[in-house]
Amino acid sequence: MAELETIQLSKFDIEEYLQDGDATVAACAEAKAVADEVNAEGYENIFLLGIGGTYDELDMVRYFMNKYSEVEVHLVNAAELNVLGHRRLKKNSLVVTASASGDTKEIVKAVDNLVAQGIRVVAFTRKETPLGQLATKVISAPVATGRCDFTYLLFDAFALRLLNLRGDFDRYDDFMAQTKNIFHDLVDIRIKFESRAEEIAHKFAHEPYTIFIASGALWGENVLFSMCVLEEMQWIRTRAVTSAEFFHGTLELVEPGVPVILTKGEDECRELDNRVEKFCHEYTDKFAVIDTAEFAIDGLDPEFRPLVSPMIAAATLHERLSKHYETETKHNLAYRRYYRQFSY
Amino acid sequence: MAELETIQLSKFDIEEYLQDGDATVAACAEAKAVADEVNAEGYENIFLLGIGGTYDELDMVRYFMNKYSEVEVHLVNAAELNVLGHRRLKKNSLVVTASASGDTKEIVKAVDNLVAQGIRVVAFTRKETPLGQLATKVISAPVATGRCDFTYLLFDAFALRLLNLRGDFDRYDDFMAQTKNIFHDLVDIRIKFESRAEEIAHKFAHEPYTIFIASGALWGENVLFSMCVLEEMQWIRTRAVTSAEFFHGTLELVEPGVPVILTKGEDECRELDNRVEKFCHEYTDKFAVIDTAEFAIDGLDPEFRPLVSPMIAAATLHERLSKHYETETKHNLAYRRYYRQFSY
Repeated sequence: MAELETIQLSKFDIEEYLQDGDATVAACAEAKAVADEVNAEGYENIFLLGIGGTYDELDMVRYFMNKYSEVEVHLVNAAELNVLGHRRLKKNSLVVTASASGDTKEIVKAVDNLVAQGIRVVAFTRKETPLGQLATKVISAPVATGRCDFTYLLFDAFALRLLNLRGDFDRYDDFMAQTKNIFHDLVDIRIKFESRAEEIAHKFAHEPYTIFIASGALWGENVLFSMCVLEEMQWIRTRAVTSAEFFHGTLELVEPGVPVILTKGEDECRELDNRVEKFCHEYTDKFAVIDTAEFAIDGLDPEFRPLVSPMIAAATLHERLSKHYETETKHNLAYRRYYRQFSY
Repeated sequence: MAELETIQLSKFDIEEYLQDGDATVAACAEAKAVADEVNAEGYENIFLLGIGGTYDELDMVRYFMNKYSEVEVHLVNAAELNVLGHRRLKKNSLVVTASASGDTKEIVKAVDNLVAQGIRVVAFTRKETPLGQLATKVISAPVATGRCDFTYLLFDAFALRLLNLRGDFDRYDDFMAQTKNIFHDLVDIRIKFESRAEEIAHKFAHEPYTIFIASGALWGENVLFSMCVLEEMQWIRTRAVTSAEFFHGTLELVEPGVPVILTKGEDECRELDNRVEKFCHEYTDKFAVIDTAEFAIDGLDPEFRPLVSPMIAAATLHERLSKHYETETKHNLAYRRYYRQFSY
């Protein structure tokens, strides 16, 4: 961080990011307190409720709950829940949801129904939004930047605390202590990744179609980038596929010139990623690998790496690549022709 | 069926299909008997285990188990289970899997581990295959055609019987009685769909990319066609997306000329499909809808329609379209350059 004042990241205000990061770290205390309350009340099982980007963000919570705990957890899509319901969802279930805007239509409708049935909903959103008004308990992000790395730390502070209180994740305090400077590391990681982001965007942003592959804790971030950034904000065609499923169909598309970006993680699924890497290196010359293991988090125990890898993917694959795709395509990330522009 | 002898379906032997269909209906008794045995032993929860096409086929079992029952059910990918494990998977869990070849590497490895731990595995496969040798109980398909409509009826005979024995699906006998001639209906449906199949394939098979949308009970069949047929067997780029998620990213890609195929089902998610249909009719001229509701099953109660809609999608979207894509592209459906051709 010595060179901070001389380093520039395109379309990124380092000072503002670090202030927001400090505020996010401070807000973790509230997330922990809400987890303590919910645990004291007890719960039978957990429903993670999202749609689009929030569904993708919650996927890493599903990942680590299944990793550490026997707790029964379901990740459900809000629009589907609204029509299908779910018979495992009971009075004593705990529903966890999120919305930066606080007015995502499908989520607001779902939470309205849930609360009317007396089912608890913990929402990561601002209190004054429609979702904030409906939810049983609100965990407020201090800044509504839509940055996934901030969101993930708040999710961790809440959901890992739930596991801690069940006896499934003993080192909660260590994890929170070791990540209190993580946003400084994530600035360094952005700086380290910058030239690669530029290079990858230059090579891939003009392609009519790209295959995006990931697995385990990084799957959600992979879908988020390919769907919510490239499809929605750049109108670029993508195919997101897990490292496991890649070998049961999508592999046949690969040949020289076919663009593939693999984001390698650090959890149990890494061996599936390695298999994809080996295959793609052999059969396409248009291949990039973003490996979260290449980026250090100062003072972090190795056992916590799978938990922070989604934040690293959010900083690299997602945030930095977005900006450089935008520079290459000259297609403004903020522009939508349909989404939330009118009723459909 | 009066005109049967004069009608031709391209690359489809009606007589052979009906014989295989009769054999499949007869084999349902074995599926039911295995369900009776498993139920008598008891089980704590259910894991549906697949990869690629079998994962997609089992998705409709997950759908109707969640629809009718409180039973805890998880659909898991075999390659992921092999590296991640699953803490809800216990000694008294019931694992259900399938493999037409009986030698799918990831499934054989998973079942080997499961059986070694004393966990029961029911496999839909042939007894003499590696999977058949390992599994605790085998339900043999009388024909290994890889036809999903046959597979679905056997899955129904087994899994709906499990629900019936739990008290969650009272009309099991009615359902099985009303579907004993279903393969005759599915021939009629193929004949009725033939000119549309030809027309859709002619319009879409030469496109470099197509978006495939479905939801609910048809989601698995939609992925199966887009990934296991078009990607794997035709080397055509596709994007499969649920009707719910479509509105959170993919919609921004749609404009005149962008190819979209929606397969509409008959379950609770139909209203999500309707929303997609309305949107796509407005924003692209390259749009086809396959609606399972247009195809009659003689003597079937309306409440059973969502259960048979995957078979209708298998006959239309999948089987007939595959053949007509092949005719258009002149790319042999049986040819693979990588998949199962060598070790990777």
